[in-house]
Amino acid sequence: MSGEDAPAQQQNAVDQKQETKPAEEPKAEPPKTESAEAAATPAATTEKAPEEETFTYRALVLTGYGGYDKVKLQVKKGKPALKAGEVLVRVKVCGLNFADLMARQGLYDRLPSPPVTPGMECSGVVEAVGEEVTDRKVGDKVMVLNRFGLWQEVAVVPASHTFLIPDGMSFEEAAALPVNYITAYLMLFDFGNLRPNQSVLVHAAAGGVGIAATQLCKTVKDVTVFGTASASKHEAISQGGVTHAIDYRTKDYVEEVRKISPKGLDIILDPLGGSDTHKAYNLLKPMGKLITYGAANMLAGQRKNLIAVAKNWYHQFSIHTLSLIQGNKSVCGFHLGYLDGEMELITQAMNTILDLYKQGKVKPRIDSTWHLEQVGDAMRKMQERNNIGKMILTTEPMPEEEKKEEAKKEDKKEDKKKEEKKKDDKKKDDGKKEEKKDDKKKEEPKKEEKKEEPKKEEEKNEEAKKEEK
Amino acid sequence: MSGEDAPAQQQNAVDQKQETKPAEEPKAEPPKTESAEAAATPAATTEKAPEEETFTYRALVLTGYGGYDKVKLQVKKGKPALKAGEVLVRVKVCGLNFADLMARQGLYDRLPSPPVTPGMECSGVVEAVGEEVTDRKVGDKVMVLNRFGLWQEVAVVPASHTFLIPDGMSFEEAAALPVNYITAYLMLFDFGNLRPNQSVLVHAAAGGVGIAATQLCKTVKDVTVFGTASASKHEAISQGGVTHAIDYRTKDYVEEVRKISPKGLDIILDPLGGSDTHKAYNLLKPMGKLITYGAANMLAGQRKNLIAVAKNWYHQFSIHTLSLIQGNKSVCGFHLGYLDGEMELITQAMNTILDLYKQGKVKPRIDSTWHLEQVGDAMRKMQERNNIGKMILTTEPMPEEEKKEEAKKEDKKEDKKKEEKKKDDKKKDDGKKEEKKDDKKKEEPKKEEKKEEPKKEEEKNEEAKKEEK
Repeated sequence: MSGEDAPAQQQNAVDQKQETKPAEEPKAEPPKTESAEAAATPAATTEKAPEEETFTYRALVLTGYGGYDKVKLQVKKGKPALKAGEVLVRVKVCGLNFADLMARQGLYDRLPSPPVTPGMECSGVVEAVGEEVTDRKVGDKVMVLNRFGLWQEVAVVPASHTFLIPDGMSFEEAAALPVNYITAYLMLFDFGNLRPNQSVLVHAAAGGVGIAATQLCKTVKDVTVFGTASASKHEAISQGGVTHAIDYRTKDYVEEVRKISPKGLDIILDPLGGSDTHKAYNLLKPMGKLITYGAANMLAGQRKNLIAVAKNWYHQFSIHTLSLIQGNKSVCGFHLGYLDGEMELITQAMNTILDLYKQGKVKPRIDSTWHLEQVGDAMRKMQERNNIGKMILTTEPMPEEEKKEEAKKEDKKEDKKKEEKKKDDKKKDDGKKEEKKDDKKKEEPKKEEKKEEPKKEEEKNEEAKKEEK
Repeated sequence: MSGEDAPAQQQNAVDQKQETKPAEEPKAEPPKTESAEAAATPAATTEKAPEEETFTYRALVLTGYGGYDKVKLQVKKGKPALKAGEVLVRVKVCGLNFADLMARQGLYDRLPSPPVTPGMECSGVVEAVGEEVTDRKVGDKVMVLNRFGLWQEVAVVPASHTFLIPDGMSFEEAAALPVNYITAYLMLFDFGNLRPNQSVLVHAAAGGVGIAATQLCKTVKDVTVFGTASASKHEAISQGGVTHAIDYRTKDYVEEVRKISPKGLDIILDPLGGSDTHKAYNLLKPMGKLITYGAANMLAGQRKNLIAVAKNWYHQFSIHTLSLIQGNKSVCGFHLGYLDGEMELITQAMNTILDLYKQGKVKPRIDSTWHLEQVGDAMRKMQERNNIGKMILTTEPMPEEEKKEEAKKEDKKEDKKKEEKKKDDKKKDDGKKEEKKDDKKKEEPKKEEKKEEPKKEEEKNEEAKKEEK
């Protein structure tokens, strides 16, 4: 199963309440037999037929576009068949990415329509190999990069989308590495052509790409890193290598950069889009490179916010060549999700990154690990920018006692949902009012909202983590 | 005198018919004395006062925007004063650039309003040094890069704008090198980040930048160079390193490239602008870089062609970030003329280029050398794309007999001017008609024009060269 085949496979899956021993599921239907070709794969011959019939696994499924609750845990049946060149991976840990949040709201066109299993990266162990696979074997520990379909216990992917996990790297680190580090690497060293003594602006410096970019900048001599993050994260990002931490919530980052670097910057990584792209362009030095790789400004609230989307479109940066020529500037766009045809390029980047890992020069930072059942809370924490480092999901089953806790929380969530609905409606009104205000002030409604919210949330996360231990 | 001071200096100059011994000029006015500061420079003390008064030199002056005849040879009086950090260079050879052609038509905003001396590069010998100049001395052979003001026998420039000519490099090569090679170098290795096995499209591969870019591409392992030029130049550019020569006049270069490189190209250097920039963008591979560095398509005819300009503006490439992101593409603009504040960057590039020259890896190719009196013919040859390599001007006085020949030609030119006027008018009409035609066909009117013209022109050039020898 390549990522593209995932939706078809889900049609075989039975949507049911998640159980710890789903093999006991009484309503088991006979699994549809795979094609003759698939049945002939080594995977099929090494497994006994009865096991194939009873083979089940848990998978997160995006059931429709919308809020955090649209990603549901389901149990699927039937062992996925392997085509030539593919491997079956028993997934241990999955990475969360900003594109997953966009995808849930229907803002990311690289994810097929729901129902579909999201997930662009994971780590795990090879459990079966298809024909023509020569460089992977059963038992290999691998990290996986795919367009989607990796947030499940079992994933079938082309062997070329897997990378061997080096000695000493945990499954958590391995799941945190591919998307963020390849993204940061290609932006800085391919488009950015980063060289000694240059200056770089890293937005969201405490996020996954931000931390990866900072570490990669530090592999080049005398690079100055400007990093934006809220004040509470400054200690962490400074320790991580940021030279000048800027609190974008209380200060104008453009002014702060100009104070230190009046001529501007050599490289700006822009995950925000909208009016921030304009600011970035004006902050470039001659021969400077602006690399835009997202539109985080489009995400406001847990459901698609049409005003935020429209505003982002309205402010979308568009550039004439004459301006580029007169400024001696470069504008680049990057998104790993659109680069899946370029596995050679990606593999080269990955090999360099793994060498840097082995030399101790880069190391993924994990913010927190969540059970599959908690994916909604994990997504919320990420979207509200309360993480420092990578958000990851583990496929480890949740202990029974923890589940009871979750059930209680679920009840609370129902209440909260109603509350949120109200707030979302309020926000839409605010959004309309805000529309005519200065861009500078756009962070404020979010902040107000957070004052009421995240404490509860944070407490819950703390509990969750304690219980995990 | 930095380039910026040139116009002021020209106010001191007396416009007069050019003579071989202009010191005998009878109408000599007393030179205006320079400021006290300038008079105190070492240059002033090393020269005797009488020489200062009689100091004259020939200079090309753009007297107004328009055709080839707008650049006139004048004699200037009064020795230019040196400020701290400046040197006075006795100019031997000057380089012609496309920007000079644009400037003559009033299409290049880095040249001050006429009257002004054009010229962005030259080679010569240091004749005097100002205060605080420590790294240049009288007698040094140098090449010079300046925003303008170098098409004259004597130029005063900041010492930082001069580069020592290495042993074995002729003044001709030295005048041909700075603009084309620094432009090609920064485009390919800074914005382009050229690496082994990549593919590059070089338009106008027989032009100055084209030849420099091709040579620089060949310094990187296994780079494939696609070069466009008219068929008669294919042998020359192939010998110069172009892997696939494409005759853009008879073939669609996009189709030709796709035949060989179906996925597209890694780097495209675009001096054309307009609709060719759109084509280039679509020809990029993922992670490809489009570097646009001119708008040669704006030049049609010897005077500003409003239709060509409007068309170029109308077709001007404008790009949204979302398209860049989804394509994983980069669009860069480059023009050395707007980079004059970045002498450190330029000096680094120049040092690398000179190292490559010493290693025999790059070598400027001279198309032809012209006397200052022949600048109009030289510009015409360049604009009509009849050159292979660099067009240069020498400040060597023209032999008397040759001058007589020139005088005869002048008479012919008068006739030709009338003829051209007619043609220009005709062209304007053609242009209007052409406006609605397909872009593909836009080269045709030029070709037709050439059928009648360049033979005579070529014969004249041949004569001129023979006479020079």
